[in-house]
Amino acid sequence: MMETETKRLGKTPSIRRMSLYLSTLKSYQAKKIEIVTSADIAADMDILPIVVKKDLQLVHPPTKKRAGYLVNGTIKAITTFLGWNKPKSAILIGVGHLGSALLGYRGFSGLTFVAAFDTDVKKIGTTIHHIPVLNISNLSHFLKKRKIEIAVLTMPSEQAQSIVDILSQENILAIWNFTQTKIHVPSHIALQREDLSAGLAELSAKIKNNQ
Amino acid sequence: MMETETKRLGKTPSIRRMSLYLSTLKSYQAKKIEIVTSADIAADMDILPIVVKKDLQLVHPPTKKRAGYLVNGTIKAITTFLGWNKPKSAILIGVGHLGSALLGYRGFSGLTFVAAFDTDVKKIGTTIHHIPVLNISNLSHFLKKRKIEIAVLTMPSEQAQSIVDILSQENILAIWNFTQTKIHVPSHIALQREDLSAGLAELSAKIKNNQ
Repeated sequence: MMETETKRLGKTPSIRRMSLYLSTLKSYQAKKIEIVTSADIAADMDILPIVVKKDLQLVHPPTKKRAGYLVNGTIKAITTFLGWNKPKSAILIGVGHLGSALLGYRGFSGLTFVAAFDTDVKKIGTTIHHIPVLNISNLSHFLKKRKIEIAVLTMPSEQAQSIVDILSQENILAIWNFTQTKIHVPSHIALQREDLSAGLAELSAKIKNNQ
Repeated sequence: MMETETKRLGKTPSIRRMSLYLSTLKSYQAKKIEIVTSADIAADMDILPIVVKKDLQLVHPPTKKRAGYLVNGTIKAITTFLGWNKPKSAILIGVGHLGSALLGYRGFSGLTFVAAFDTDVKKIGTTIHHIPVLNISNLSHFLKKRKIEIAVLTMPSEQAQSIVDILSQENILAIWNFTQTKIHVPSHIALQREDLSAGLAELSAKIKNNQ
């Protein structure tokens, strides 16, 4: 278990880069480029070629000897590796500014929002970016009827755990937590905590290195 | 250069965890706990104690032999390491849903928004979360008068590079890019690209591991 955990942690930065590989490769695809080298990709992503090679080993991309990666096949390999060939059905809870931004975000390949939930009667019954906003009191009932795989949390922190307790009793696979609080979920539910300050920490370290 | 770059990449996950160490340590501070072990912190953050030890070595935290980390001193050490003891002055460009969410986000310790910019005459002249929204055509003039350290980009992707070209001519330290496009900046400006899909990739890998 210890070893698996360490391995998983070691792979995290590679996995976080996968969506940028996808968008970079799709830009080659748009230009009808069929083969690229790790050096090409590295230059476009501002990382080292060795990092590209190591990262892409995880997804077993098709290559052509000495010439490089086959663009279409590598896109397919990454998409399959992430399970994004079958986008996951998702709901979002808490339609504030961040929630609305995520509902309208066009960059999510692996996720399709089917509904959003809120407590505000002014929002309930409307649609945001074509996604219906439903009453949070119907959450449990909704989840019994519809197969939902991912719940995205953008409600105020103090409401998070009580909603998570409802979600935990239904058949969902994963929770993506954008609130600023730690939540507790059963181990069969995958959990990702999104910390917007993590990027600021990284930027701050870069500023320091520059000075 | 190669070695420095590799070292920097190796440290990135540790640096991204720093803000969660801060909020975890602040929760101990609120409970008047003065000393904690790496095992305590690890349990609260769902990571391994060895990761905590390795990460915190970067900031030289004060410890008490065999007892653990001094909470107040370690908060101070992380804050200083990130340069968050002196919050950076920031502007935000593009007051859509995501921009508004960031202006109102209470979790940023290292950054203070002083103004936001937009092209929409309905937004210009208003305030959002007490931050004034100014006309984007005044950006260059504003930056000559006020010392701004970080520019946060939340405008549509296709406008990003032209705004970055204006920013690059002024005296800013860093750009935090939330748009879905690659931008080019002079090397003296630190750049952080925020990719919301990176977290989704991580979550997707966890879902797969769970199945």
